[in-house]
Amino acid sequence: MAVKKAAVVGATGAVGQRFLSLLHGHPQFRVTELVASERSAGKAYAEAANWVLNEPLPKEFAGMPLKLANEDLDAEVVFSAIPSGTAGPVESDLAKRGYKVFSNAKDHRMDPDVPLLIPEVNADHAALVRQQGTDGFLVTNPNCTTIVLVMALKPLHDAFGIRRCIAVSQQAVSGAGYPGVPTLDILGNVVPFIGGEEEKVETETLKLLGTLRASPGGGRGPAAIEPAAITMSATCTRVPVEEGHSITAHVELGRDAREADILHAWESFRGDPQRLKLPSAPQQPVHVHRAANRPQPRRDWGLERGMAVSVGRLRPDPILGWKFFCSGSNTVRGAAGASILNAELFLAKGLL
Amino acid sequence: MAVKKAAVVGATGAVGQRFLSLLHGHPQFRVTELVASERSAGKAYAEAANWVLNEPLPKEFAGMPLKLANEDLDAEVVFSAIPSGTAGPVESDLAKRGYKVFSNAKDHRMDPDVPLLIPEVNADHAALVRQQGTDGFLVTNPNCTTIVLVMALKPLHDAFGIRRCIAVSQQAVSGAGYPGVPTLDILGNVVPFIGGEEEKVETETLKLLGTLRASPGGGRGPAAIEPAAITMSATCTRVPVEEGHSITAHVELGRDAREADILHAWESFRGDPQRLKLPSAPQQPVHVHRAANRPQPRRDWGLERGMAVSVGRLRPDPILGWKFFCSGSNTVRGAAGASILNAELFLAKGLL
Amino acid sequence: MAVKKAAVVGATGAVGQRFLSLLHGHPQFRVTELVASERSAGKAYAEAANWVLNEPLPKEFAGMPLKLANEDLDAEVVFSAIPSGTAGPVESDLAKRGYKVFSNAKDHRMDPDVPLLIPEVNADHAALVRQQGTDGFLVTNPNCTTIVLVMALKPLHDAFGIRRCIAVSQQAVSGAGYPGVPTLDILGNVVPFIGGEEEKVETETLKLLGTLRASPGGGRGPAAIEPAAITMSATCTRVPVEEGHSITAHVELGRDAREADILHAWESFRGDPQRLKLPSAPQQPVHVHRAANRPQPRRDWGLERGMAVSVGRLRPDPILGWKFFCSGSNTVRGAAGASILNAELFLAKGLL
Amino acid sequence: MAVKKAAVVGATGAVGQRFLSLLHGHPQFRVTELVASERSAGKAYAEAANWVLNEPLPKEFAGMPLKLANEDLDAEVVFSAIPSGTAGPVESDLAKRGYKVFSNAKDHRMDPDVPLLIPEVNADHAALVRQQGTDGFLVTNPNCTTIVLVMALKPLHDAFGIRRCIAVSQQAVSGAGYPGVPTLDILGNVVPFIGGEEEKVETETLKLLGTLRASPGGGRGPAAIEPAAITMSATCTRVPVEEGHSITAHVELGRDAREADILHAWESFRGDPQRLKLPSAPQQPVHVHRAANRPQPRRDWGLERGMAVSVGRLRPDPILGWKFFCSGSNTVRGAAGASILNAELFLAKGLL
Repeated sequence: MAVKKAAVVGATGAVGQRFLSLLHGHPQFRVTELVASERSAGKAYAEAANWVLNEPLPKEFAGMPLKLANEDLDAEVVFSAIPSGTAGPVESDLAKRGYKVFSNAKDHRMDPDVPLLIPEVNADHAALVRQQGTDGFLVTNPNCTTIVLVMALKPLHDAFGIRRCIAVSQQAVSGAGYPGVPTLDILGNVVPFIGGEEEKVETETLKLLGTLRASPGGGRGPAAIEPAAITMSATCTRVPVEEGHSITAHVELGRDAREADILHAWESFRGDPQRLKLPSAPQQPVHVHRAANRPQPRRDWGLERGMAVSVGRLRPDPILGWKFFCSGSNTVRGAAGASILNAELFLAKGLL
Repeated sequence: MAVKKAAVVGATGAVGQRFLSLLHGHPQFRVTELVASERSAGKAYAEAANWVLNEPLPKEFAGMPLKLANEDLDAEVVFSAIPSGTAGPVESDLAKRGYKVFSNAKDHRMDPDVPLLIPEVNADHAALVRQQGTDGFLVTNPNCTTIVLVMALKPLHDAFGIRRCIAVSQQAVSGAGYPGVPTLDILGNVVPFIGGEEEKVETETLKLLGTLRASPGGGRGPAAIEPAAITMSATCTRVPVEEGHSITAHVELGRDAREADILHAWESFRGDPQRLKLPSAPQQPVHVHRAANRPQPRRDWGLERGMAVSVGRLRPDPILGWKFFCSGSNTVRGAAGASILNAELFLAKGLL
Repeated sequence: MAVKKAAVVGATGAVGQRFLSLLHGHPQFRVTELVASERSAGKAYAEAANWVLNEPLPKEFAGMPLKLANEDLDAEVVFSAIPSGTAGPVESDLAKRGYKVFSNAKDHRMDPDVPLLIPEVNADHAALVRQQGTDGFLVTNPNCTTIVLVMALKPLHDAFGIRRCIAVSQQAVSGAGYPGVPTLDILGNVVPFIGGEEEKVETETLKLLGTLRASPGGGRGPAAIEPAAITMSATCTRVPVEEGHSITAHVELGRDAREADILHAWESFRGDPQRLKLPSAPQQPVHVHRAANRPQPRRDWGLERGMAVSVGRLRPDPILGWKFFCSGSNTVRGAAGASILNAELFLAKGLL
Repeated sequence: MAVKKAAVVGATGAVGQRFLSLLHGHPQFRVTELVASERSAGKAYAEAANWVLNEPLPKEFAGMPLKLANEDLDAEVVFSAIPSGTAGPVESDLAKRGYKVFSNAKDHRMDPDVPLLIPEVNADHAALVRQQGTDGFLVTNPNCTTIVLVMALKPLHDAFGIRRCIAVSQQAVSGAGYPGVPTLDILGNVVPFIGGEEEKVETETLKLLGTLRASPGGGRGPAAIEPAAITMSATCTRVPVEEGHSITAHVELGRDAREADILHAWESFRGDPQRLKLPSAPQQPVHVHRAANRPQPRRDWGLERGMAVSVGRLRPDPILGWKFFCSGSNTVRGAAGASILNAELFLAKGLL
């Protein structure tokens, strides 16, 4: 299989850096273009970017020149790490110009014809791209907290149905990008609010667990996602953690489940990435921890190179039925790795 | 009013240190005895204690000799900071020997004849001490997380009734005492389990919001607490915060409430400490924060010298009805300050 | 003594907030004007400022309108918390217009006719203001690290002379203002460089410990500061500490000193603020800690309301002679409190 | 080459865990025995050890039974992670019984017939083991701070000679093992003292940079190490960093050096591990960072799998001549990895 040429747009930011770190040495995509804003365009990457990851900048990118998004890009695939809010029109334009855009931004996530995709969860939603009517197309991955939560919910939804879910998150500072959270706000502290985050968790979850309807209403209209009928309640907080979002989840299931059934649902959960052996796929998407004090974000975010999600502390909840704790990488599984896995899925399905 | 002589038992530990810091200069209690374990007995306090508070050790205590709990103590009141598990028999013995014991330990909290007391919440439960049949008596304050939560729940329970409550805590490391939590466990991390904590929050809350029955069952038996009929579900986690426990709470109320009614219930809430102008009482027990990103443990735990509790982020919850975030000092309002306020209540009511 | 009207310029930033917190209830200065940049001018203070201190915003300032620095200010004294770089021309203009400006910015610190002042250290340098030739005048306080270091060096310089000094700092994030240091840069990390900081420590120390010469060169020229003849070598690093700068200092003294002599020099050190009983003066400017593991920034920065400096770990250095560790508040003693103490000195000396 | 059987003694502690993590999959050593104290002996490893590393416990060790050090061990090599203070007699006994002991403990480091070894620095000192007169032998690696410092000093000592060195460290909490540093002591804080650490840095450095004399004094006596003639002054502090010790070093060189010469000395530095291509050897032992704000412990400790040391901020020091900042992993390069590299050196030299 030929290696696809890829551009990373928004390459100098924290998510852009994570894209580069993950695409370095990737067997299917080769980064041929780096794109940034006007302030950086024309400079060499290493000169324009303030590299903030703990792993070093791969040497191959250091000297690459930064282009603007409206220039011609020698690439078929575009990974977009453009900040939400700015991403919308830029990504639409790229799709119109024929690029296949895999975006981490929120701007198009809830568009009816744009797949909001986690390959293990709703690979069939990929078909939505056919309705976009552009030469290229646009695929999004969910918010970082939503991904961790939905990876844990999906096996339960499949096995028992989920009716209601109360989720309380504790999110890492890397979720806010760079410079992101000022140290004075979070050192030795908890911040109980992250703008827009709770809405994203509540709405994206329903689209991800929703059903692709060939033609809703029975007519000849386009395919669409019918959101899952789950009542969601999310609270999102920030904690002084570098990497790894954690969520305390309470769920009401559609039918009785025993503890062993739930654990089995999680541990046996596999999706298209596992069946298709996608390069970035974790072997086991959901890891169950038996120690009472696990998972922990710092110690467990790196499982399966950051692509697996961890669950633990499953126990009965006297109000909704069951409660548990889950955690996972927000910058790998929850952002750049999510986009790359989406692209790998498209490639494996012949959509790329 | 004469100043009462007081002993601090368990004086060298972290809670004992907080007792000393708060009793220094207290208008009603004068520390005349410091008590510790065999390892320290006989030494001067400053020599035996590894002072860990940020404020300095008050000079008056530095040279005081440490006694054992079974020695004669020149004191009427005993503040107990003995670790839970060890406290039980020591405190019982002290009460039998005629001391009035105000304990922060969990060991006797759920005893039927021992008041589990927050003066703003259930001052009438103090009457239980009459049934203890000893020359002295034993009074306890709740777990640090429970206190913060119940201070926020009580005004709602009075005004609307609470039927169900889901609480998720983020607790400071000082709640585990000293040496407590190893840095390697919590730096840049969240630990999703604290042994025994969830049970304490779930059971103590019901006793605190329960009703003193003169003689349950209508007979001539002793008074007892009828626990509140609330379904509780607690999850307790540890975060890298020095001081201040925070809780995300979801509540189902017994009847409809508007946002303004709930805010009013919190802001107008006053109890015996305020009416009796107890020295350690906050003027306003519950502070409502309007900024979306407040309260925060580090910035808000010190309100009213650490004796007030903060609430914020009140908003509808699609599942239980309402949700909010609350926070407060775990070592002052949640531990030593709680015991001292209990003693002040007893003094003001003539029970001391 | 009449209370002086004071303006705080740069009032919305972190140092401005500290000024307000310290001036609230001050017996000699009453804040009558709050000044900010164009972005905030016209708004009420509470609306424009993102209050980041742990103590609450004093209510008196919440509704005060923000002015611009070029408007007429109903104030005699101006406390300047304008960021370094911007401060220079604004402060010069204020002095020309007759205001008495006490600045925390670096811009004018090394000007020959501007006192760089620590009242305990070089109160006589205040006389320099007479040469400024403006209706008002300009007084500066040193960099936050320099203040802590020089408070510890001054008693040794007076008693024994200092010839050489190697200083390695560990500085709190609050020293960088707000938003200041991104959490991703400093959580669980050390950053070995702070732009311009080492130069400030090396040059400001010499001016502070320098000598006021009535007329250098013997002629009729103006008074000037002859810098101290000390060789300075500074390394400045950032650590994940909220408040309190710490410095490991190695000093070569001009003559032999015994340990007891050095300790005595520190403990007996007093200056004009103590003799004049200035409201913000610490009773003892330098506290000596005997415990081997003290001072510590978090536990000791608050000594004497943040206005004292702590030293400890004095021991022989086989290379320069002596070494020790010192620590102190960077936002109180090292910034806003320093400026206020300067103004109190001027008031007590009749220069205001 | 046959794979050697190895025992890890002190296997349950933090350093023992790091040994297991690094020996998992090692091409030359296979862990056949795990040894712990009486409290754990007889249990399976996973049951007795509280695994605290961020990477998971390798499955091969989970079920291995723990033995006591005085039992027969089916191993030729022993890696000792016994805590300093306890290690001494246990290690001596193991050497007497014929085991080849590679120890991380301080107890025997300064013994005249025990090599204190960093393979890049003083591989020739390995010859000392011939004088131990036991069937087995004992080899030690230095203190974690010393290793980082000496790796940076050695190239300068070889090229220019070092006469004097002032070192100020900022050390990670993992250096204190587990449970180690209580969170309440270090969160948002700096602790300016680590018991015994400064003496280790000052004395071990001289032995490491010292010269192996066939027979000191010219007689027929045994070989011995003549310590380097360097005047050392160390200050050691603790900071809230998980991994990576950092040191600000000031050095006086024996002859003039230009900046480029020093940088070249570091970058061209190679030792036996590189020439012999030892499995754990870094390709480049000392990495020079050009960015002014590097190296940083969190971002740079992992270079070359934690086996390289980083230097940066080289600049003239007006007092000693030159100063710089260096940093490196304290648990890999500074502890378990150091012992393993020592064993690899012995194997490559035919001493094992």
